[in-house]
Amino acid sequence: MAVAPSPETYDQAGQGLPQKPATIGDYLIRRLQDYGLRDCFGIPGDYVLGFYSMLEHSSINVVGCCKEDHAGFAADAYARVNGLGMVCVTYCVGGLSLTNSIAGAYAEKSPVVVISGSPGLSERPNNPLLHHKVRDFRTQFEVFEKICVACTELHDPHTACREIDRVLDAAVRYKRPVYIELPRDMVKVVPQQSNCYRIAEPASNKDALQEAVAEAARLLATAKKPIIIAGVEIHRFSLQDQLLALAETLQIPIAATILGKSVVSEKHPLYVGLYEGAMGFDDVTAYVEDSDCVLLLGAFMTDINLGINTANLDPGRCVYATSEQLRIRHHHFHDVLLQDFLKELTAAKPATAKRPVLKRAKGDAKPFELKPDAPLTIARLIARLDAALDSDTIVISDVGDSLFSTTELTMHGRTEYIGPAYYTSMGFAVPASLGAAVARPQERTVAVVGDGAFQMTGQELSTLIRHKFHHICIVLDNKGYGTERFLHPGDFNEINPWQYHKLPEVYGGGKGYEVRTEGEFDAALTKAWTDKTVSLIQAHLSVTDKSQALGRLAERLSKKV
Amino acid sequence: MAVAPSPETYDQAGQGLPQKPATIGDYLIRRLQDYGLRDCFGIPGDYVLGFYSMLEHSSINVVGCCKEDHAGFAADAYARVNGLGMVCVTYCVGGLSLTNSIAGAYAEKSPVVVISGSPGLSERPNNPLLHHKVRDFRTQFEVFEKICVACTELHDPHTACREIDRVLDAAVRYKRPVYIELPRDMVKVVPQQSNCYRIAEPASNKDALQEAVAEAARLLATAKKPIIIAGVEIHRFSLQDQLLALAETLQIPIAATILGKSVVSEKHPLYVGLYEGAMGFDDVTAYVEDSDCVLLLGAFMTDINLGINTANLDPGRCVYATSEQLRIRHHHFHDVLLQDFLKELTAAKPATAKRPVLKRAKGDAKPFELKPDAPLTIARLIARLDAALDSDTIVISDVGDSLFSTTELTMHGRTEYIGPAYYTSMGFAVPASLGAAVARPQERTVAVVGDGAFQMTGQELSTLIRHKFHHICIVLDNKGYGTERFLHPGDFNEINPWQYHKLPEVYGGGKGYEVRTEGEFDAALTKAWTDKTVSLIQAHLSVTDKSQALGRLAERLSKKV
Repeated sequence: MAVAPSPETYDQAGQGLPQKPATIGDYLIRRLQDYGLRDCFGIPGDYVLGFYSMLEHSSINVVGCCKEDHAGFAADAYARVNGLGMVCVTYCVGGLSLTNSIAGAYAEKSPVVVISGSPGLSERPNNPLLHHKVRDFRTQFEVFEKICVACTELHDPHTACREIDRVLDAAVRYKRPVYIELPRDMVKVVPQQSNCYRIAEPASNKDALQEAVAEAARLLATAKKPIIIAGVEIHRFSLQDQLLALAETLQIPIAATILGKSVVSEKHPLYVGLYEGAMGFDDVTAYVEDSDCVLLLGAFMTDINLGINTANLDPGRCVYATSEQLRIRHHHFHDVLLQDFLKELTAAKPATAKRPVLKRAKGDAKPFELKPDAPLTIARLIARLDAALDSDTIVISDVGDSLFSTTELTMHGRTEYIGPAYYTSMGFAVPASLGAAVARPQERTVAVVGDGAFQMTGQELSTLIRHKFHHICIVLDNKGYGTERFLHPGDFNEINPWQYHKLPEVYGGGKGYEVRTEGEFDAALTKAWTDKTVSLIQAHLSVTDKSQALGRLAERLSKKV
Repeated sequence: MAVAPSPETYDQAGQGLPQKPATIGDYLIRRLQDYGLRDCFGIPGDYVLGFYSMLEHSSINVVGCCKEDHAGFAADAYARVNGLGMVCVTYCVGGLSLTNSIAGAYAEKSPVVVISGSPGLSERPNNPLLHHKVRDFRTQFEVFEKICVACTELHDPHTACREIDRVLDAAVRYKRPVYIELPRDMVKVVPQQSNCYRIAEPASNKDALQEAVAEAARLLATAKKPIIIAGVEIHRFSLQDQLLALAETLQIPIAATILGKSVVSEKHPLYVGLYEGAMGFDDVTAYVEDSDCVLLLGAFMTDINLGINTANLDPGRCVYATSEQLRIRHHHFHDVLLQDFLKELTAAKPATAKRPVLKRAKGDAKPFELKPDAPLTIARLIARLDAALDSDTIVISDVGDSLFSTTELTMHGRTEYIGPAYYTSMGFAVPASLGAAVARPQERTVAVVGDGAFQMTGQELSTLIRHKFHHICIVLDNKGYGTERFLHPGDFNEINPWQYHKLPEVYGGGKGYEVRTEGEFDAALTKAWTDKTVSLIQAHLSVTDKSQALGRLAERLSKKV
């Protein structure tokens, strides 16, 4: 998974001194480019201005955001689409503002490189009180150690290149965020000596792999009703083709988790729908739980993926394979890579019972029929949006009913649905739309976001407007924290109502719409769909309206809080 | 400093079981009230909804914010005004969003109590992937350990009350933030047994105190030009009266640091101005540096307080006393409390040379004369604002030139100026204004904020509007990160220009103004001053305009980045 340094970076032996005296800053930029990084999100600040200047003169495109945590969300979404994302900020006031968004990237396995400037080493003797410092000069580093898979501070010219290689390798290997701290007086230092980082590619234990594949093949060969549940790692580790090869070769139907939604096209003939316990459609739930051999592939078994633990899967009938573990029934195999397991199981080609694919995986398979004067509801809004979806559209959901309702959309292609379905941080959708738009500038992005979440980070629409992206932001406006109203009523769930549709005027571009009926929503969406600008649709909804999934979820969660 | 539990809380012996079976949630609320807490900032979320409900039924007023980090800034400002602040959020997505604002409270010694809900203890066996979890259930706790002075997780009914007492005591003792994590299934648990927390009040070592006071008195008695530099701890530890007693008894002139601005009234006859090295007025700098005995009292010697290390104070002539240390010339005294040192030094009453108080402590002492058609500049805007100030007004500054320019305002009363002058986190001012307004609802709050900072957190104006506070938000609009333009030019300093003045329409209240000339600013400010609503004044400025202080600062800082 690691990407070797490009030929320009080291001499031909692949180690030793860089070919020409590159600075630490140069080396870092070059290696990021090796990994296919073209864009960077962030906000400048004095401890990182030198490196910012270097970025500006490189081919990496710097996208300024309104706020650092927005930049974190944008880099996360960019990483989900592009394979690696990057955010660059100043010390503490910048870095510590990223804590939540990077924690979300850790939880949901999104490889984001965090680069933070810091006070120069020469400024630090006697521990002076330099601005932005918290407890001591290590505070920010220690915080990021808790939420990243690898961290480094580039304080030594002898090890800087190797350290850069090590943490970038960790990001792509584990699909988690990493942290690089760059003291401002190290940016232009030329490394004195540098050994290439030795990349130890992981490999499966062949015997364990063989035994595991043989056992899984036996289970499949005797099963009458096999099913695959595909999870988000299939996308993160780019295993979509291998997954399809397995499913198509053995003709096994595929369900997906919420976090894994759109890892395969939801139009694929073997696809049956989302499996999400009591939150999902009854027929899908029954179809999956009726299986006598469940292949869980790259799926995290989170509470939300499991419909808040309402899923009912007997481990005695499961093969559970992720990048971190392989469990068949009640025993574990160590050192078996997910990709090897998929490949070998496909090659083993067990004779599998051909299970009829579930026909009606959606609640409403009839074509959408507009009722122009009917008050708009979430369910109907989603149905209308679903009818419009095509393979040029990326949908980004926020949390709460934005997440639950959009799970009912049918995504045409791969990785077109981005939702924070495990970490569920409110305010994700608008900044994440910026990240997706920067990664795929030719496509249309659609954010579905609640009014409470929009009040957190909605000003990032300004950046989408500034860069002239084609974006549609649908604000589900029920004047409060709708999901929480169902969980636990209280005045604290009510928020100040805004005239969201007037914001494009403030941000200097785009168009605002205010809609209350199906007809008004239809007209706004139709216009916004082809208008290559930013459209904000404020959808007034009843405070008691909710998606079916939220109704079920709220009922179950309210018993716990 | 610690506040003993109120009589209702424990039996009369002051220890043993609470009088009636209060739950852990009840006890926590009661103790917060003992410390004078009347208001709480935050955002609800499912792991904290039970406690939110309890708060709602208590006399503590819950102020919902747009975003968690805004709630952190608001609680910080509230603590600066009220003595203790509080923010209450849900697990990880809420708590980790507070990292930056709570780090700022740590750096600038503001006692904020962070209360975070977390998954119930009964939900945790086998380490399930519950939503909002990052690495493991301790991740958030470990992050807050880095940025708080005391932390506790209330996981044990036997120790919960004592732990609550311990961390609240630490908050007021050290004037730093503390962290309390409340698993959602512990909120309603009744403590089975509870010993009152033993409060060990710190005391000075009498011999060290006596020796230090004697030496300081000797230095003062022989000095010809003594000066006091008052810092922010004088306010945090409520030592203003003691400081004035010392200064007035010995007739020593007083300067203040930026972070300590307004610890004493800037109209006080002994007050000479802000000491800030090369950033300050030459006459004040010369007056202070010419002193042969400098009493630095409760001042942090930060880079910005020292005018980015351009201050020129000879330690051989300094007495440096804070809550953490006492240094006279080049030797240190341990275990001498700042309040004891102040009191005893006043009592010692050394005969001090009466130094003439510097007359002109301000750059422009002439009355403000309006030039109605002149394009508005920062300096003139500040001069006009200065003429309007009265003792019913709290000024809250953001960072950059909002901070530097507002240091030139003359504050009438005490603690009326709030600025993040050490940690300098952009976006502080608007949410902090909410905190100050909630703490002093009868007063007028004025925020001075740059356009870049406003784009970070400006939507918190919505909450000021919702609660009908009298607030004036002056946006210094120079279409970019002005301070950074001087430090390091680059396109990354340019931001998308907004029509800020239209935002009141979006937020459903208040008034917006757009001004370009002195006359327009004057008219808007005059109206806003008496209009008991929220006024947003968008002040268009030239991109090259800057305060004098910024000019000097930028010149010095640009040599470092």
